[in-house]
Amino acid sequence: MDTSFVPDLPSGPLDLYRKRASFNWKEMKVVLEGEEGIKYKSIIWKTMQKDPVFGRGSLPYSLDEYREVTQKRVRRLVEYNMNSLAQNSNIETAMAWNQAILMYDSALSAKYNLNAMMCAVALIQTGKPHFQELAQKFENLEAVGCFCLTELSHGSNTKAMRTTATFDPQTDEFVLHTPDFEASKFWVGLLGKTATHGIVFAQLYTPDGNCHGLHNFLVPFRDLQTHLPLPGILVGDIGMKLGQNGLDNGFVAFNQVRIPRESLMDRTGSVTKEGKYVTPFKDPSKRFGAALGALSGGRVGITDMCTTNLKLAVTIAIRYSGVRRQFGPTKGEEIPVLEYQLQQWRLIPYVAATYVMHIASRKLFINFSESTMAQLMKDRSEKQANLGKEIHAFSSSSKPLGAWLARDCIQECREACGGHGYLWVNRLGSLRDDNDPNCTYEGDNNVLQQQTGNYLLEVAREVQRGKKIESVMGSLDFLNNMKTIVFHTFNATTESDVMDPKVSIAAYDWLVVYLLKESSHKLERELKSGKDAFTARNDSQAYYLHSLSRAYVERTCLEWFYNYCTDPTLSPGLAQVLIKLCALFGLWSLQKHLSVLYRGGYISGPNPANIIQSGILSLCSQLKDDAVALVDVFAPPDFVLHSAIGSADGQIYQRLYNAMLQTPGSVERVSWWQDFVDKPERGSRPLAKL
Amino acid sequence: MDTSFVPDLPSGPLDLYRKRASFNWKEMKVVLEGEEGIKYKSIIWKTMQKDPVFGRGSLPYSLDEYREVTQKRVRRLVEYNMNSLAQNSNIETAMAWNQAILMYDSALSAKYNLNAMMCAVALIQTGKPHFQELAQKFENLEAVGCFCLTELSHGSNTKAMRTTATFDPQTDEFVLHTPDFEASKFWVGLLGKTATHGIVFAQLYTPDGNCHGLHNFLVPFRDLQTHLPLPGILVGDIGMKLGQNGLDNGFVAFNQVRIPRESLMDRTGSVTKEGKYVTPFKDPSKRFGAALGALSGGRVGITDMCTTNLKLAVTIAIRYSGVRRQFGPTKGEEIPVLEYQLQQWRLIPYVAATYVMHIASRKLFINFSESTMAQLMKDRSEKQANLGKEIHAFSSSSKPLGAWLARDCIQECREACGGHGYLWVNRLGSLRDDNDPNCTYEGDNNVLQQQTGNYLLEVAREVQRGKKIESVMGSLDFLNNMKTIVFHTFNATTESDVMDPKVSIAAYDWLVVYLLKESSHKLERELKSGKDAFTARNDSQAYYLHSLSRAYVERTCLEWFYNYCTDPTLSPGLAQVLIKLCALFGLWSLQKHLSVLYRGGYISGPNPANIIQSGILSLCSQLKDDAVALVDVFAPPDFVLHSAIGSADGQIYQRLYNAMLQTPGSVERVSWWQDFVDKPERGSRPLAKL
Repeated sequence: MDTSFVPDLPSGPLDLYRKRASFNWKEMKVVLEGEEGIKYKSIIWKTMQKDPVFGRGSLPYSLDEYREVTQKRVRRLVEYNMNSLAQNSNIETAMAWNQAILMYDSALSAKYNLNAMMCAVALIQTGKPHFQELAQKFENLEAVGCFCLTELSHGSNTKAMRTTATFDPQTDEFVLHTPDFEASKFWVGLLGKTATHGIVFAQLYTPDGNCHGLHNFLVPFRDLQTHLPLPGILVGDIGMKLGQNGLDNGFVAFNQVRIPRESLMDRTGSVTKEGKYVTPFKDPSKRFGAALGALSGGRVGITDMCTTNLKLAVTIAIRYSGVRRQFGPTKGEEIPVLEYQLQQWRLIPYVAATYVMHIASRKLFINFSESTMAQLMKDRSEKQANLGKEIHAFSSSSKPLGAWLARDCIQECREACGGHGYLWVNRLGSLRDDNDPNCTYEGDNNVLQQQTGNYLLEVAREVQRGKKIESVMGSLDFLNNMKTIVFHTFNATTESDVMDPKVSIAAYDWLVVYLLKESSHKLERELKSGKDAFTARNDSQAYYLHSLSRAYVERTCLEWFYNYCTDPTLSPGLAQVLIKLCALFGLWSLQKHLSVLYRGGYISGPNPANIIQSGILSLCSQLKDDAVALVDVFAPPDFVLHSAIGSADGQIYQRLYNAMLQTPGSVERVSWWQDFVDKPERGSRPLAKL
Repeated sequence: MDTSFVPDLPSGPLDLYRKRASFNWKEMKVVLEGEEGIKYKSIIWKTMQKDPVFGRGSLPYSLDEYREVTQKRVRRLVEYNMNSLAQNSNIETAMAWNQAILMYDSALSAKYNLNAMMCAVALIQTGKPHFQELAQKFENLEAVGCFCLTELSHGSNTKAMRTTATFDPQTDEFVLHTPDFEASKFWVGLLGKTATHGIVFAQLYTPDGNCHGLHNFLVPFRDLQTHLPLPGILVGDIGMKLGQNGLDNGFVAFNQVRIPRESLMDRTGSVTKEGKYVTPFKDPSKRFGAALGALSGGRVGITDMCTTNLKLAVTIAIRYSGVRRQFGPTKGEEIPVLEYQLQQWRLIPYVAATYVMHIASRKLFINFSESTMAQLMKDRSEKQANLGKEIHAFSSSSKPLGAWLARDCIQECREACGGHGYLWVNRLGSLRDDNDPNCTYEGDNNVLQQQTGNYLLEVAREVQRGKKIESVMGSLDFLNNMKTIVFHTFNATTESDVMDPKVSIAAYDWLVVYLLKESSHKLERELKSGKDAFTARNDSQAYYLHSLSRAYVERTCLEWFYNYCTDPTLSPGLAQVLIKLCALFGLWSLQKHLSVLYRGGYISGPNPANIIQSGILSLCSQLKDDAVALVDVFAPPDFVLHSAIGSADGQIYQRLYNAMLQTPGSVERVSWWQDFVDKPERGSRPLAKL
């Protein structure tokens, strides 16, 4: 295999582990990321590294500085035409573009993509000629768009938005209005300081006073020459967030703002000159679903963003653990903390999860691309309809799984790096802060998971009615056997048995089927007790539908990864280590459901838990010598990773010390030093009275 | 009961829940915090609120600003002599002082206490007259001390520190030296910009070349007039941390710095003029333990700091959930998110945990104070020796329990408040960042827990040898029955059975005994397999000693809270709700160990898990109308809470909107607006070559 285009890593303390690795990390990299993807990312990163605009220091930016530098960087992405290599190319390059920018700074990625990708695509998808030119302006940053959906007092319940767009046939215009400040559009990315236009979701009213539900309108926000807000538009910045502050989120309120009738973007409904509402849809709820269509894809992107964050976090923590030495079996000798069982047990399962999520995210992306293409081609086949539903159900759980895995992984890495993990220059803090909103936006994790749960219940009912499921992504096919699976029990008896990932997959088969059955019974009981459907469903989340969605997505990711590792075209040297990662992810994920396995009688007695746990520890121990090479596979260059303790040469202390000394003012006396010299007088000021 | 000194809360949307509360929140407050404590905190907060130095805005400070304002605030604490009311008073006021400052800003608390409390006390405890005057200077901020223990490449393994102090009999001085930069003292609080003196831990060498282990020395760092570093001292700031940036952590390296022989602080060893080392201790490991004695108490303080963070986080999330409405059973009607089972299940157990930790922290503090007093009084009784050990073992697990509970609670609250939880003005972000180091400093959580595990194994061996345990804090007495407990099984059969916290306590009794037995067997197996003691213990952490420590501390906290709730002097109205919190905490904590209960045969079949889970949901539902009043009990005034969505009047949107508008530059065009108007040219810059 040609791996000549993958540069060597610098020699240093990490050689100890790199020499022990059981596989060739460059070959693994080429297999997992593809030659095109690797080369493309390399070009992007080299370009960035040469350009001072992408330089970073050892202190975070202030809010305003971060906004300014991010805007300059977005301009550069356009000037370098950086996404050009991704076009008309293979899957690796399509994903490489996003990953390269995400690894550098997720706020930069968001700032570029929200406008130049999402808003531009939404304009193009209207099919209306007058929006095409603006779409191109968005792409080239001659104008900037943003999506205005959520309001100050409404997020998840999108239908309850209160911004109105009332048609005035006298002037052939819509009048956009915000009834009160709670209905201000809020949280809108790019709106705080940047956007010149908004795609605004508002309740459409016709002159007869009828409301036709949520529609989207293209609305100019700021003057293209002066960048000042247009009349009637109160627009502002929502201020400091916990992370991603390179992106300016904002709010906007409309005071009777008039826009031409042609501003209505929806193809799902239109208003005639006379003010009559016409729509091809009879069912208003279907119309609403279609209107939100432009926002789909977000969950697919977030699944990959979380996977990217996993890659960065484990790189930092594993490299640190391979160099940091503390205590040892004999006096004077200290061993790398990676040698400790507890450290392995805390970190190596997340290395496994990173590999599993890499494959899952890739497969989801491929299927999503196919589905999008089919939609553009107006493919109305049942296969495509089913794929669309499966992607919806899967991504509604893979986005939460990815977000929570990355959340927990980053935190574990932070703690596993001790105090040094708590220093800003080591990146784990900004990773945590930047990953955090993945739990919330594009659908709150907990709310989203309900989508998956409901879908699985529906599929299970179809199976019970005798329908045979043939899912395009293969995530549902095992449900065809649900009637027999429910009677299965755990058949492993030794630690060596559980090393086979099929044991975990079989346990997950049972787990999903059991939780489906239990959830369905729970829902029935709640309904029978007299609760309405809304309340019954809500009261069946904890321990039931909530666990079901999680088990389903873990099972699917595990099976996909297993299929990948056991593909006969994979070289045996790589397959050997991947199958261990697969087994580890399976057991480690399953372990969180042990009590359900006991509760439902799938396992009993101490042996199953014992062999699962000793299997996990044994796999961690087997993988510890491969761990450094495993993170080398996904690690970006140091310039991108931007973590002193995560550097490829393992010179953790040298780099940390340099970072301290390079922090402006580090060893200087502060300008307000006289505050230290001027001594206070104890008790010189009186306390307040009670 | 007189509650007249507790001010009413403002009316607003939260009235809905406040009116439904089953108990009088003011009475609960007086019972839990004490009249003296409440009044004292009120005086502190009123004093702060009147003083512009304590004013805060809607943007975080830059690193330098935060350092400066925190220094000014520390001065004020001295000028107001704020801790004066806590002296010679009861437990409530002693704790109130810390809590009042912690709730405002934990970095301020650290900045004040590290110097004026910890360093000053360490000087006083030397018993050496020449340190007494300096101690007073520390207290009055005429000089500032810091503890220099950890080094760049050594934290947990304190014995491996490499800074040296070599005695030179010719000048009667010690020569302090840092052999290389990895041995720089690192992470030292107050050292970055502030400290004038350091208590430095260094390996003491006598002229004969012998090393006598780690000792501490008082070393002047900065000139008291110019605040510049003294000759031979390289001192700097370690830069931006993820939180607590009001506190300046720093590093220092010594280049042959000479200090007088009297600078040696230890009472555990001294050096004669001639350079001979003399010590009352024969065993060097005992000497080392005593040298670290000055650092004890940190874990007790952190347990309370985490409890304080729990109080702040649940206040914000519960109040928000009581006001935020989203979706509803019928069209048009929306219900508070606190009505949803999932939201209750995510948040209310943390309200219970807050109450449990409040009582546990208080009890720990009382016992710690008694133990400290006994030490000062040179009480060498066995009771005091045992209490010391019990406090060490308990606090080595209560600090991790508190830190992790607060970590998980704050994150859950952040997510449960959706996007708004991700805004800096709502405080959850700074709470998370400020709580985070609690997992690491004063002993890494995972390393600390090993102390507890080892201690419990030792106690169990004593019981097996026939010794009767009478622990002062009562956390170990149940082990006297370990021989019978191991045969117990779960005897609850209905949901109503598990509502009795005694059921959870009994399950915990079994759990701890079972994990003790299993850990002991595991350790034996590892030793028999030929591993040395160091490796055997390390390889018995995951699933064994690690779980044991956690189970022990949860059991103890649960039992203490149960004893508190069932005290006959408690009014029945308050007892009723407290016992529900107790039951909820018991079941919710126990639930995480369900698989162990199954594994060991304490429970079997689906019923135990089912009734525990339905018990949890049922208790959450029963407590949801009390939740707002329960957080009102501990909530500080809005000025201190500093969270728009957590405000006492429940005006979440109004306050959030105001916070946005009050953010400097919120609705203004940025100064660099021309960057938006000046359009880039796509492809005008060349990409780098591969």
